[in-house]
Amino acid sequence: MSDLPTLAQVAAEAGVSPATASRVLTGSVRVSTSTRRQVHDAISRLGYVRHRAPRGGAGRRSDHMVAAVLCEPVHRLFTEPFYARLITAAEEVLTRHGVPLAMMTATAATSTVATPPLVSGGVDGVLLIGARERHPLAVTLAASGVPIRCLGKPPEGIELPHVDMDNRDGGRQAAEHLLLGGRRSVAVISGPPGLPAARDRLDGFLQTLALAGMTGVPVAYGDFSHNSGVHGMQWLLRRMPNVDAVFAASDVMAAAAVQTLRRAGRRVPDDVAVIGFDDAPVARRTSPPLTTVRQPVEEFAALAARLLLLAMSSPATAGGAGNNPVLPTELVVRESA
Amino acid sequence: MSDLPTLAQVAAEAGVSPATASRVLTGSVRVSTSTRRQVHDAISRLGYVRHRAPRGGAGRRSDHMVAAVLCEPVHRLFTEPFYARLITAAEEVLTRHGVPLAMMTATAATSTVATPPLVSGGVDGVLLIGARERHPLAVTLAASGVPIRCLGKPPEGIELPHVDMDNRDGGRQAAEHLLLGGRRSVAVISGPPGLPAARDRLDGFLQTLALAGMTGVPVAYGDFSHNSGVHGMQWLLRRMPNVDAVFAASDVMAAAAVQTLRRAGRRVPDDVAVIGFDDAPVARRTSPPLTTVRQPVEEFAALAARLLLLAMSSPATAGGAGNNPVLPTELVVRESA
Repeated sequence: MSDLPTLAQVAAEAGVSPATASRVLTGSVRVSTSTRRQVHDAISRLGYVRHRAPRGGAGRRSDHMVAAVLCEPVHRLFTEPFYARLITAAEEVLTRHGVPLAMMTATAATSTVATPPLVSGGVDGVLLIGARERHPLAVTLAASGVPIRCLGKPPEGIELPHVDMDNRDGGRQAAEHLLLGGRRSVAVISGPPGLPAARDRLDGFLQTLALAGMTGVPVAYGDFSHNSGVHGMQWLLRRMPNVDAVFAASDVMAAAAVQTLRRAGRRVPDDVAVIGFDDAPVARRTSPPLTTVRQPVEEFAALAARLLLLAMSSPATAGGAGNNPVLPTELVVRESA
Repeated sequence: MSDLPTLAQVAAEAGVSPATASRVLTGSVRVSTSTRRQVHDAISRLGYVRHRAPRGGAGRRSDHMVAAVLCEPVHRLFTEPFYARLITAAEEVLTRHGVPLAMMTATAATSTVATPPLVSGGVDGVLLIGARERHPLAVTLAASGVPIRCLGKPPEGIELPHVDMDNRDGGRQAAEHLLLGGRRSVAVISGPPGLPAARDRLDGFLQTLALAGMTGVPVAYGDFSHNSGVHGMQWLLRRMPNVDAVFAASDVMAAAAVQTLRRAGRRVPDDVAVIGFDDAPVARRTSPPLTTVRQPVEEFAALAARLLLLAMSSPATAGGAGNNPVLPTELVVRESA
């Protein structure tokens, strides 16, 4: 436990007084936005967690269990490598703190099955993953008062503490790279339109192109899976035969696009540039290796887990709403674009 | 009922106080490893099972949640396709019955973290997967009185209701196929020696060879992963350069063996026959496609889930010990042997 950073260290890192850092953690409004951002950045960098309160009050009904709830069918837990990375990293942090992690999945259709143990004291905290618009579980959990931390921005209209990646800026970086490379017939394979992370990537990408005068960009919507990448690329090739660049919202879909383009006789990147998103291991195995937008998946999940632990031990502090760090994304240039 | 052992008898047998024995059962971390082992040994020797209150009373703390507990590090949940198949099939049955499934992982080292929510009413039933000898969680769960169903035979010395595959007969079928094919320099890439399923496959295989007069068969021990299959095959090639047949305890390891043999300049099956185990999707994607022992993974997991639900609703009936079905395995002949 001695390696956990202190609040004084956070304040020093942020260049503010401990009292100011403390006010940021308690969600006080008497702190300027820029100061709050400095402290948030320091918290993210240091991975600060407030000291945990002693275990076991009278009202407790379980023994410090956290549930990672994925708002997807269970097979996606095993086929989407992004989820495996998130959960492995979160489990590592929680286990180190002596807190067991249970994984659950819930689609909109099965959320009534998953809800009772989550809101009736069966678990002490929830890491919510992949919640899209109108997912009933997100709404129920937000109202339940159980400590919760969304991995990624919650759906619109639902207030939930979260950690996010700068998806919009990742989309911007991808667009600028393609524009600088002289690409002029650009298309997108997006993630699901109801998922905030997917929409942010798309918005950042399209807005940057629009600023350069490029509009009417065709968008295929996938679900991050390989098959949806194949179908998206096939649709785009029919729609825009002269396509010379594709931005895909995940590396799995980008790898599928590269494969589909090759089968259609197009060379990557000579004929068509392809940019992915994630910097997953598959990005290095693809031929050619993928240019992609790196998101710090493990740091993201670990930070969410730490903030959830904080909320579980002292709900009134920075574990609550208002402290929603955004981690930066970064273009990694390899060979596909 | 009067001769059922009590917790006081367990404590006396272990040479510890009843309070200490109780702490072991609730998964408290405030017990030394050696003391915990003493109590676990006493529990196993006496066959102690905690008496649990009937369901649905005031003491209920959760809402019909089942936990699938994998006795492996969390990354294995995402890299071993066998576990994904098991859990997907179990989840389907449980969800259809309105019972949510939570997945947890626990190594011997982290079992004190995972134990408390499992034994303190946090869950209503446990599907135990991959428990090897001396895994502390298997002992604690067996004593906890929580309804449980092992997927696969429990480790020796621990009485737990289970569903099994006929692993021994699968090993027998593989050996007979190789003998009928005239193979005379046979080797094995086994699973972990502490895992009952792995030992049964190996025993069935070796005993069949022994009946045909073949002894001294070299055995490499892997952990079902691709890397362990590569290393096992490399070791066997050094140990037995004239090897003409390999039986691997999983398709993933068999596929790794095929790849390793090819890199060593051996043709499959001309120079070396390879038989896998599972009939996983990878068996059809390998070149050449794998001859393998099919186990009915989905039926196995669905049956275990149904029997657990039965035990949760009426502990005195067929859901309990004594009804431990064994599902048949079947050799599927493709091209690798």
